[in-house]
Amino acid sequence: MIKSNFVIKEKLDTLGITLPTPPKPAGSYIPVVRTGNLVFVSGQIPIKDGKILYSGKVTKDLSIEDAQKGARLCAINALAQLNSEFGNLEKISKIVRVSGFVNSPPEFTEQPKVINGASDLLFEIFEEKGQHTRVAVGVSSLPLNSAVEIDLIVEIT
Amino acid sequence: MIKSNFVIKEKLDTLGITLPTPPKPAGSYIPVVRTGNLVFVSGQIPIKDGKILYSGKVTKDLSIEDAQKGARLCAINALAQLNSEFGNLEKISKIVRVSGFVNSPPEFTEQPKVINGASDLLFEIFEEKGQHTRVAVGVSSLPLNSAVEIDLIVEIT
Amino acid sequence: MIKSNFVIKEKLDTLGITLPTPPKPAGSYIPVVRTGNLVFVSGQIPIKDGKILYSGKVTKDLSIEDAQKGARLCAINALAQLNSEFGNLEKISKIVRVSGFVNSPPEFTEQPKVINGASDLLFEIFEEKGQHTRVAVGVSSLPLNSAVEIDLIVEIT
Repeated sequence: MIKSNFVIKEKLDTLGITLPTPPKPAGSYIPVVRTGNLVFVSGQIPIKDGKILYSGKVTKDLSIEDAQKGARLCAINALAQLNSEFGNLEKISKIVRVSGFVNSPPEFTEQPKVINGASDLLFEIFEEKGQHTRVAVGVSSLPLNSAVEIDLIVEIT
Repeated sequence: MIKSNFVIKEKLDTLGITLPTPPKPAGSYIPVVRTGNLVFVSGQIPIKDGKILYSGKVTKDLSIEDAQKGARLCAINALAQLNSEFGNLEKISKIVRVSGFVNSPPEFTEQPKVINGASDLLFEIFEEKGQHTRVAVGVSSLPLNSAVEIDLIVEIT
Repeated sequence: MIKSNFVIKEKLDTLGITLPTPPKPAGSYIPVVRTGNLVFVSGQIPIKDGKILYSGKVTKDLSIEDAQKGARLCAINALAQLNSEFGNLEKISKIVRVSGFVNSPPEFTEQPKVINGASDLLFEIFEEKGQHTRVAVGVSSLPLNSAVEIDLIVEIT
């Protein structure tokens, strides 16, 4: 059997994921910078077609389940940025780091559960290459009142 | 016309920026570490001559405009650290990552506007090389009650 | 005198530190990823034998001194992750970055003092190689109500 050159594209299709036109940065910076084999992706928020879909403080303004969907959307937006930069996602050899910031009231302590929305998706898409290190913290507020913000560092070949 | 070897120095002069003696770390760590072609700069706060110039929570204790000036000062301090480490800033081939933490009340959502104070300056100084990825979040509090804290990762040649 | 190949191991022994079995990730990710000579360690919390030892908001629920011990325990857990991945810590040529997130009430501003609990230990163990850059911020809440969370980037040879 001939192995496709578009393993990740096929996986996205199987999962029913269409990468959107990537959202524009919310400030004076750019979405992706490559240095050597590392690629940094700017912080992504749960925005779709110019509209924040998951906003507010988790448990107060939205459920953990919705915040997880928000984290998943952040990850999709990050992949859309990479896709837009490199033409496809096949060059990604490793997801190195996921940093997840959860818009949290002082008493909320289940940030890992929220960020799993992004982590699970990355593992589904990239399998072994998608196993990443992670930082998940609760923050007092986020840009445009997003419920979650996620940034990535990936390795490419 | 002969191109100067001190393009960045001249740009700083044009902008009227004199890099200060870099502030000492506020704890038991060092300001700059190089690994390969990457250079990490410790989190910088809006301090000048030993005094925090922009403190408190944005919109509650200071205006967005002042917080932007604070972010700009953080960036200047980061460049001062790099200048002190390498003798000049000419070796910087790319600003890779800016992380910006804004001292925010729970309802503040304009972190990108604040961190633009740093991003705009980096672009003014380094032009194309200064286009960076960015993470901007709101945090509940910062060292010495700083209004903003910024750290950098840069690439050098 | 023949120099030992296990300098760091001996230092840990001298300090009376036994690296624990590293704690399992609190979500769907892995503790350590290597890319080139850089190694990223996931955010570590002050957990021992499955129990969070230092929890709550600093000054409100625990003292700065206890939070420092929490930061030290986070650093020990990060080293335990690296030890588990590489078999020992001798390959570490540099601690590049320590990011420290302190569970802080809005008025707490001594995050550097807390994170020194980790920084001091890293310097004690690795001496010159342990001198790192650092980011320390206050966050509104942390996973499992941890008082502090710390992640590392190290360089290995």
